[in-house]
Amino acid sequence: MKKEHEDQILAAARAVEERVEKGAVSNIYFVACGGSQASMMPAQYLFDRELMIPSAIYTSNEFNYGTPKAFGKDSIVFTISHSGNTPETVAAARRATDAGALSICFSNEVDSPLWKAAGYQIHYDHGSEADEADKGGCVELRAWFEFLKVLDAGKAATWQAASKSVDEIPALKEKAVAQYKDACTTYASDTKREKLIYTMGSGANYGEMYSLAVCWLMEMQWVNSSCIHSGEYFHGPFEITDFDVPFIISVGNGATRHLDERALAFARKFSDKLFVIDENDFDFGGVPAEVQEYFAPEILGAVIRVFVEAHAHDTGHSLSVRRYMWQMEY
Amino acid sequence: MKKEHEDQILAAARAVEERVEKGAVSNIYFVACGGSQASMMPAQYLFDRELMIPSAIYTSNEFNYGTPKAFGKDSIVFTISHSGNTPETVAAARRATDAGALSICFSNEVDSPLWKAAGYQIHYDHGSEADEADKGGCVELRAWFEFLKVLDAGKAATWQAASKSVDEIPALKEKAVAQYKDACTTYASDTKREKLIYTMGSGANYGEMYSLAVCWLMEMQWVNSSCIHSGEYFHGPFEITDFDVPFIISVGNGATRHLDERALAFARKFSDKLFVIDENDFDFGGVPAEVQEYFAPEILGAVIRVFVEAHAHDTGHSLSVRRYMWQMEY
Repeated sequence: MKKEHEDQILAAARAVEERVEKGAVSNIYFVACGGSQASMMPAQYLFDRELMIPSAIYTSNEFNYGTPKAFGKDSIVFTISHSGNTPETVAAARRATDAGALSICFSNEVDSPLWKAAGYQIHYDHGSEADEADKGGCVELRAWFEFLKVLDAGKAATWQAASKSVDEIPALKEKAVAQYKDACTTYASDTKREKLIYTMGSGANYGEMYSLAVCWLMEMQWVNSSCIHSGEYFHGPFEITDFDVPFIISVGNGATRHLDERALAFARKFSDKLFVIDENDFDFGGVPAEVQEYFAPEILGAVIRVFVEAHAHDTGHSLSVRRYMWQMEY
Repeated sequence: MKKEHEDQILAAARAVEERVEKGAVSNIYFVACGGSQASMMPAQYLFDRELMIPSAIYTSNEFNYGTPKAFGKDSIVFTISHSGNTPETVAAARRATDAGALSICFSNEVDSPLWKAAGYQIHYDHGSEADEADKGGCVELRAWFEFLKVLDAGKAATWQAASKSVDEIPALKEKAVAQYKDACTTYASDTKREKLIYTMGSGANYGEMYSLAVCWLMEMQWVNSSCIHSGEYFHGPFEITDFDVPFIISVGNGATRHLDERALAFARKFSDKLFVIDENDFDFGGVPAEVQEYFAPEILGAVIRVFVEAHAHDTGHSLSVRRYMWQMEY
């Protein structure tokens, strides 16, 4: 990771620490839209599992208009916008800053409106030229662990080890991608004429599966989709399962694995069109066992990307074509 | 409302009050599955908007397996299961009781496993013979306001007025149903051959629209669906909008109305198959203006039911037929 990214993370972590020392952290809000919101869902899960401080995640305008009463100067508000331009997210970051809350943003664009609206800024790289270690996934994950070091000082050694292990992610992604490449391309080909593909996951993985549904499939492939929480599958959604209904299912390696396994066992009986990404297949290298669950979504995302790129190739539907987004005022 | 229901609510509210007096309420969890979880989503929104105490909602097994660290003896855990038999929800209620948390359940079945697992129990009626005032919707809403009276004593007069106004709901539902009946039956007929119908909403209404997607459409009509949060629509999902893609959109009467209006304005341009339920059309009788937002989902649910029953009639697909649920082990 570039020194500038590390410095930005450490500056933000120091700001968190100052608030902690003053006893001025009552709650934590993760606020963003679409794929950016999805990228923070694993963090909200991580914080929920590991901290006594309450945290919640909102799509930006739900936060802006339906503002939680507990939001105020003792809040930490994390925002992300790739372009730094998403108006709803800029408004949330500005509002947090104006309220005296600790307002920390992530963006690919330095000096963007989001950058200016937040109190602390963390940049990440993007694109095929960029080093994986400097892209959003690794930068975000490093930041969460650095924040945990100060928010959960009793387990600082755990979070320090986790933070250090983020360096392994690029290599771990490569391994998982190599393992799943054939399965991804086969499933992409098998589903290239499907008008609808469901996704399913739970726990730390829910965000990746949500992103697969709303960004990769609906937005970029114009394929109908819905992300079903695997804990909810049996309470309604499973009735649409049939031999010809496709599902992409992530089976986690963490606390909620049972939910995914149970949903998969059922779906296997009644759908012939499943694609399963099992995180127990992933190599976690030297990542400490107790935090592997929090690394898994990042690796899962790399596998999903292989599927999506193969799918776009087989459908001929470019991932960069939009009919509405950026094409008009909305 | 029957005296027994009122007495159960007041007993649970007294238990909440005792905890408040001891300073022993750190957080509140709403835990249930499917339609039962959806029925508490408006409550989580209400508590989030009105209380400094953090609250969160989970599908039961996400709570049981991916348990939030802050859960413990100073938690209040609300559970609901219609049959009182949902194993995941029974486990959550029992776990709350065992942890020394305040465990309060709602169920249609007295002496069910859920009933026995929780510390406090609230019964509601069900079926065509039952009085609307004693069904789940009114009983839940009354309970939330009684709990707010003790959780937010500074605004006790507001919550007292709101609690009293719950008596008006049966009449308000009838009016809304009469207003929307023709629109519901027309849209049901227009969509009877659709394989997929999206739903959309935000704020207090998200739960009703989620329930419409996963319970009414997916579970009971085997129609593919997904509930899109109207704040998320522009961040991916809207790319699937087309002239022949049906959407059922609730336009709220509360804080997040802007999100719904914006999504609707866009969808109107590109889909010819919209059904809009605008809560500004509803008569709220003597319900105080400042709490009408919290009453609206209950009235919305009555309108949705008219649509769903007409849809089931026109498709010939009975709402009571299941191919998996209750038919097998899963």
